[in-house]
Amino acid sequence: MSNSESSRVAAEKPRGFADRLGKAASAEERVVEAVGRVYEQWGFDRLETPALEFTEALGKFLPDLDRPNEGVFSFKDDERWLSLRYDLTAPLARFAAEQWQTLPKPFRRWAGGPVWRNEKPGPGRFREFWQCDADTVGSASPAADAEIVALACAAVEAAGVARGNYVVKVSSRKLLDGLLELVGVPQSAQSQRLVVLRALDKLDRLGAECVRALLGPGRKDESGDFTQGAKLEAAQIEPILKFATASAETPTPDRILGLWNEVSPDFKVAPDSIADAGVKELAQIFGLLQTMGYLDGRVQLDTSVVRGLEYYTGPVFEAQLIGGGGANFGSVGGGGRYDDLVARFTGERVPATGFSIGVSRLAAVKERLGWGEVVAANAPVVVLALDGDRIGDYFGIAQELRDVGIRAEVYLGGAGMKAQLKYADKRDAPIVVIQGGDELAKGTVTLKDLKLGAQLAKDLGEDREAYAKSREQAQREVPRGEVVAAVQQMLAR
Amino acid sequence: MSNSESSRVAAEKPRGFADRLGKAASAEERVVEAVGRVYEQWGFDRLETPALEFTEALGKFLPDLDRPNEGVFSFKDDERWLSLRYDLTAPLARFAAEQWQTLPKPFRRWAGGPVWRNEKPGPGRFREFWQCDADTVGSASPAADAEIVALACAAVEAAGVARGNYVVKVSSRKLLDGLLELVGVPQSAQSQRLVVLRALDKLDRLGAECVRALLGPGRKDESGDFTQGAKLEAAQIEPILKFATASAETPTPDRILGLWNEVSPDFKVAPDSIADAGVKELAQIFGLLQTMGYLDGRVQLDTSVVRGLEYYTGPVFEAQLIGGGGANFGSVGGGGRYDDLVARFTGERVPATGFSIGVSRLAAVKERLGWGEVVAANAPVVVLALDGDRIGDYFGIAQELRDVGIRAEVYLGGAGMKAQLKYADKRDAPIVVIQGGDELAKGTVTLKDLKLGAQLAKDLGEDREAYAKSREQAQREVPRGEVVAAVQQMLAR
Repeated sequence: MSNSESSRVAAEKPRGFADRLGKAASAEERVVEAVGRVYEQWGFDRLETPALEFTEALGKFLPDLDRPNEGVFSFKDDERWLSLRYDLTAPLARFAAEQWQTLPKPFRRWAGGPVWRNEKPGPGRFREFWQCDADTVGSASPAADAEIVALACAAVEAAGVARGNYVVKVSSRKLLDGLLELVGVPQSAQSQRLVVLRALDKLDRLGAECVRALLGPGRKDESGDFTQGAKLEAAQIEPILKFATASAETPTPDRILGLWNEVSPDFKVAPDSIADAGVKELAQIFGLLQTMGYLDGRVQLDTSVVRGLEYYTGPVFEAQLIGGGGANFGSVGGGGRYDDLVARFTGERVPATGFSIGVSRLAAVKERLGWGEVVAANAPVVVLALDGDRIGDYFGIAQELRDVGIRAEVYLGGAGMKAQLKYADKRDAPIVVIQGGDELAKGTVTLKDLKLGAQLAKDLGEDREAYAKSREQAQREVPRGEVVAAVQQMLAR
Repeated sequence: MSNSESSRVAAEKPRGFADRLGKAASAEERVVEAVGRVYEQWGFDRLETPALEFTEALGKFLPDLDRPNEGVFSFKDDERWLSLRYDLTAPLARFAAEQWQTLPKPFRRWAGGPVWRNEKPGPGRFREFWQCDADTVGSASPAADAEIVALACAAVEAAGVARGNYVVKVSSRKLLDGLLELVGVPQSAQSQRLVVLRALDKLDRLGAECVRALLGPGRKDESGDFTQGAKLEAAQIEPILKFATASAETPTPDRILGLWNEVSPDFKVAPDSIADAGVKELAQIFGLLQTMGYLDGRVQLDTSVVRGLEYYTGPVFEAQLIGGGGANFGSVGGGGRYDDLVARFTGERVPATGFSIGVSRLAAVKERLGWGEVVAANAPVVVLALDGDRIGDYFGIAQELRDVGIRAEVYLGGAGMKAQLKYADKRDAPIVVIQGGDELAKGTVTLKDLKLGAQLAKDLGEDREAYAKSREQAQREVPRGEVVAAVQQMLAR
């Protein structure tokens, strides 16, 4: 291995990926653990699938098309294309199709872990992030959707969001599909419908004016990139926008049809139309949620919710965090019904519905808002290594501390006392354990309380005499056999 | 989305990858949690790095070269090659080089998660598996190696292996390097040395005869594939094999030099040679391990341990599981010192040493041997849904059970009583909760103990009368308000 200047490798990672150390690490795992416990409690079984799948098994349903391989990390292996999973739903569909004969039906499963998107990286926009999903496969009943919505509430609360700080918004693709039918964008105009869908999904972020442009000729963003629009005419655009921007509310089931009529008075719902089916399903879902007591602000109807993923076929859900005064901190999860995903494999329609918590996004928002639990700073006690020939003894002291549950480590560098104390400071150590030649001769050790020492130094300022005295206060010499008890006592005070 | 026969996608996953459901899921995470707790306790901080890195940042150190891209899943992104990490050490080296200025030094970190190898899949040979590592970066001291070996013991025990059922074997690359120097394979013959290394690493699996061929002209395996050998002559091969097959023992530090002289009597260790340095380091490591009490069978010297990864530069470790009578169940982890890995980035040598538990392999071996803890079967109570209009009530019963900590779910399909009971059986439900029209009129529910019912049916065989009576025993009708208490009582018996 050559270390010459010319052959040096850059110490860098790809953009859109992050390192996390210490307390910042495993934030996602803690959320998955807490949410997973709730999913389990509701009868969902955990499923783990591989990070890599055949590209064709995952399908292409992502809203972002600004990358060459359509938002997915893909590569060729033995003449077949493999991709990193971009969500946990597509692998579930593959699994359910593969194992359908042996599964209990309907099949409830949950999953949690990282997913990867090959999107344009940007501030706060990562290409590796965690999700935690619950899905019911094999039930077409609106009861399955209602259960998923109720479970979404329980899951968001388990992730540490207080009731009142979130709302799960519900709508249905069928309402939008029905309206598109009525304004003259038939189901056969599939790619045009997709552009409409993705435009509406940006309503929250871009506002009505930009979305109007995206429904029409298109729009140039700040970076100068032009996004093609859906090329609809004003007479088509306005009812769609009016429908999508109808204000959120918590309707009783019998109010749902009325709401649709209010926001689209010129486009009546025909009996047995797709919009009619959507209205009836929503009414059933809200009926059940009312029975279960979830219409107390936790769940609302919101016609602006469409979700960007192509595979949804009916009800769609989105969990948003809200602050005091109703400030909206954005989406932290979503889901919906996707009745055609398993049929890609089997040819037979298998109804399915589910919800996904954006674990990384939720963790980031919680941290930004200061909602996160303060993780106890569990910094280690540092045993100094003043005599290189006595490392074994220092290891022994550290092990005694660990044996009673105290995190402890021995300094392993070759530096002197001052540098070792600096290391302990950097480790945020509460206490250092010192046994130099003097202590060894007396059979003692010195314990230094770095927290108390720093506090006293700060309180006393320039008073040298008091400072000298404070050093005594923050420092104790105890017999070697009493180290553990003394450290326990100092940590407790 | 077309579901026609011709466009159907195969429901399959790439070979060498696995799905795991229910109790089989998260076995790896439980091991990482237990082992991570020990690593934390010893002062190591958790580090999470991305699954994807720049290919050149990971380097090429894998022993398996039988795949086009040398064992790594790689693909091109924006004109640069990215790879899935093949271990947790290479990303640590990248991170340490990137963050060296700000880290406490020496830097102790642990990491746990999946890694990917693009190897030939085979029975029990996966291309996605978990590791859990602890590493110390920035200390050249043998004390750092000794600490890692001791920690490896604690980690293997935390993963559920009893003391006496494992051994951590220790050797040093420097001994082998010194011997190769003496038999005329100089350090400049790097690729030849690599072939020797990889041949010796297979000693356990292939035996001395095959390794002799691999050190010489080469070897054809059962599948007919030919592996090129190191092309050494017999006079070179025999001392190498003699050295590598020297039996394992637990030497005292002063016995280490003697051992080397015994196994290679014709090749004396010259003062200040690389072998001399290796012997002295090992003596220090074993001295510390003796002080700490680890030479009680937990740690042994074994000259056959070389480890397949190219980047090791000094001491190497391997943890093996052993059964009664000393049966060897194979390696479940390994590590060593790799002083040049960070220098690839910085140009300056940063000494480092570490250990990695093969989490997936350990979990698989434990399961095969029946050493695994039996995870409590936590099957859900199933609430039957006999009346489609009353799903909300059934949801209510399930929620009441969850509220006291009982896992519960409502049947969500459209089937009748018999199919619902069959579903409950498939879910392994201990109890089903039934409220049909009769019970509703009386304000009661029926609770069926499926476990007791199955036991009685088995005990009674053909006795119809007793069987009818047993059905009463396994079934209770209770007032609706007493469901939770009654289920708790039945679960407790």
